[in-house]
Amino acid sequence: MVVEVISVGTELLLGNIVNTNARYLAEECALLGLTMYNQTVVGDNRGRLSEAVRTALDRSDIVILTGGLGPTEDDLTKETCAEVMGFPLVEDSRTRDRITEYFKNSRHPEIPGNNWKQAMVPEGALVLDNHNGTAPGLILEKGQKRAILLPGPPDELIPLFAGQVKPYLQKLRPEVIVSQMVKICGVGESKVEEELIDLIDRQTNPTIATYAKTGEVHVRITASASASETAEKLIKPVVKEIKRRMGTAVYTARAEETLEMAVVRLLKKYELTLATAESCTGGLVAGRIVNVAGASDVFHQGFVTYSNKAKRKLLDVSKSTIKKYGAVSKETAKEMAVGGAFAADSDLCVAVTGIAGPDGGTEEKPVGLVYMACCLGDKVTVERYQFRGNRSKVREQSVVRALDLVRRTILENHK
Amino acid sequence: MVVEVISVGTELLLGNIVNTNARYLAEECALLGLTMYNQTVVGDNRGRLSEAVRTALDRSDIVILTGGLGPTEDDLTKETCAEVMGFPLVEDSRTRDRITEYFKNSRHPEIPGNNWKQAMVPEGALVLDNHNGTAPGLILEKGQKRAILLPGPPDELIPLFAGQVKPYLQKLRPEVIVSQMVKICGVGESKVEEELIDLIDRQTNPTIATYAKTGEVHVRITASASASETAEKLIKPVVKEIKRRMGTAVYTARAEETLEMAVVRLLKKYELTLATAESCTGGLVAGRIVNVAGASDVFHQGFVTYSNKAKRKLLDVSKSTIKKYGAVSKETAKEMAVGGAFAADSDLCVAVTGIAGPDGGTEEKPVGLVYMACCLGDKVTVERYQFRGNRSKVREQSVVRALDLVRRTILENHK
Repeated sequence: MVVEVISVGTELLLGNIVNTNARYLAEECALLGLTMYNQTVVGDNRGRLSEAVRTALDRSDIVILTGGLGPTEDDLTKETCAEVMGFPLVEDSRTRDRITEYFKNSRHPEIPGNNWKQAMVPEGALVLDNHNGTAPGLILEKGQKRAILLPGPPDELIPLFAGQVKPYLQKLRPEVIVSQMVKICGVGESKVEEELIDLIDRQTNPTIATYAKTGEVHVRITASASASETAEKLIKPVVKEIKRRMGTAVYTARAEETLEMAVVRLLKKYELTLATAESCTGGLVAGRIVNVAGASDVFHQGFVTYSNKAKRKLLDVSKSTIKKYGAVSKETAKEMAVGGAFAADSDLCVAVTGIAGPDGGTEEKPVGLVYMACCLGDKVTVERYQFRGNRSKVREQSVVRALDLVRRTILENHK
Repeated sequence: MVVEVISVGTELLLGNIVNTNARYLAEECALLGLTMYNQTVVGDNRGRLSEAVRTALDRSDIVILTGGLGPTEDDLTKETCAEVMGFPLVEDSRTRDRITEYFKNSRHPEIPGNNWKQAMVPEGALVLDNHNGTAPGLILEKGQKRAILLPGPPDELIPLFAGQVKPYLQKLRPEVIVSQMVKICGVGESKVEEELIDLIDRQTNPTIATYAKTGEVHVRITASASASETAEKLIKPVVKEIKRRMGTAVYTARAEETLEMAVVRLLKKYELTLATAESCTGGLVAGRIVNVAGASDVFHQGFVTYSNKAKRKLLDVSKSTIKKYGAVSKETAKEMAVGGAFAADSDLCVAVTGIAGPDGGTEEKPVGLVYMACCLGDKVTVERYQFRGNRSKVREQSVVRALDLVRRTILENHK
């Protein structure tokens, strides 16, 4: 089954916003086992939109349209699709009631006149209740062709798709698609592919695909079968084999778990507390830890020590260490970690010091050179990295590696 | 002149990556005064790509293609465009030399055989040197139609477009387009539009457009004229009027200056130092300040005090204040800022404490409640916010407002 996406909106053609909806829908459709050959963006223009819808319905089985369902005159997606597919517009009383209800609960109890436009639907369409806005989602069926109309704001589109469109599309297909994600940190994508190449090449069901993220590689294993239990059975041994080959580089096998969530999970599991001591990352490691709701159980404080004086005063790094080895050195990183754990009275402390650039690099210590250290009890691990890229790339990679260093330190001590 | 973008890549159709190139090109083309009616995404498939190129060349004057210029068999953009437009491929000796040079300077001195494919160009094409990769950019001209081929990686595409394609496109148009950005913080988009509505409605040259960002509103003023001096003259009084109406809410009138850059600029100007004391933002305010190269002149240290104990120990917040008013209160925020400035021996300190959620909210202090304080000398300003959205939205908004509070505090004291 072939699906395609038409995104409607002049703001996309002007470059005001990035088309994140298209990415979301493409990924979801791939997970449903649907094939996508085309994506299109058109403006709020009746002629060009008609043309795009006609072309899409001609070459694809399912056309998903996003945007242009608002209450204004500019919003033409519903009217245009109805016209192209030959459906008259009729009032949907349930949508009318929902709009009334929506405004009653909002801060603007008077309903603008043009909002009633949104209660008009193509005759025979499936109406999908939108709980986050006034425009309903719509599914239009004609023969073997289907048009699915969704509102443009992601916080309306995503719940509508996940809750109502996905089950609808699943029913159209005889098989079930199940996928699982294995997330890896500290190993490059080409290295992961090298390790898994025979699996990737050999497998057709499940399939294996790798995705490079900053400092991480995500591996998706996707199987299709007549029932989800069968698909899961196909996936399980492959996940196990990937974990075996990649070892502790695998930080999670749950799609929704981020690296910082995995770190907080391990800290909680072993009842450990963490502190941070950051120079070039300037608080971003702590910021990632605090992303995790409930981090307060394991993270109480962090230090941003950007100047040498702050490193000495807050982390008790010795003056002679900085003088002898420099602020960006394994010796300073080590003292920052040990001093940070002591000052924060925590079990672990991770420290980062480096040259993020664009200035400050030398031949001996070039831009991108970063030392990080993590201490746990008496043991301190120090690592040296030479990152590529601009200031923000160097810092982003440092943050990921620092989080992973905490994770590996805990695992190393709890084998 | 009508332009359109064709993005080539299966990874876009699978939803592996977001199409940020299309947004960048759309924005740049709009700034050049070119009209865009269509954007298309197709996979690495000869038949479908041919079809897309034919359709695009038929309805538009300029077609910009991105991606599919790599060295592998899958990369078909150049071959397909050459075929559709009727140009044979010939070897470009300068590109061949550049590839040799590129590999000589890299860590992989042997050149993979298939990389020579990248030295083949459509006969008569303008070859654009790519200094960040091996695939050159290409401009194919046939009659009044033009195809511009650019590599997919943004760090290759953007420099090629900005350095070589933009000047080429500018020459095609009789007028010059000049634009300026005015950036506003602390006022919502609808309020900004309300203040400027007569200007927005009245102006046709320059035009005025507003863009909502997290906690910020950017206003772009764009003029076209026969010479850039004339366009600048059209823009100047409008920028002045916007600044007059929006007052100190305008933090910059330079497109490339971010909020944190404006804060660091003011700190440097008045020779002030800043410290940070963060609870719910967990280091992200400090992280934003450190985004700015050269921040070390004005920022030496920051505290992440996530627990009450850390607030007491590092910032000297009194036990009774936390007990009486709670950790999320104006009293605690105030003591955090004052204590942080003292501990860091800095001129200013900004403090943030709030309930980011999803847990921890009460009827009296709901999720999204954030207090922030900034002290400078004897003066402390405390502000209370009730943000909407999930944990990360609450924290992102807090960071922007905290940076802006620093900015306003400095301005207030240097009127």
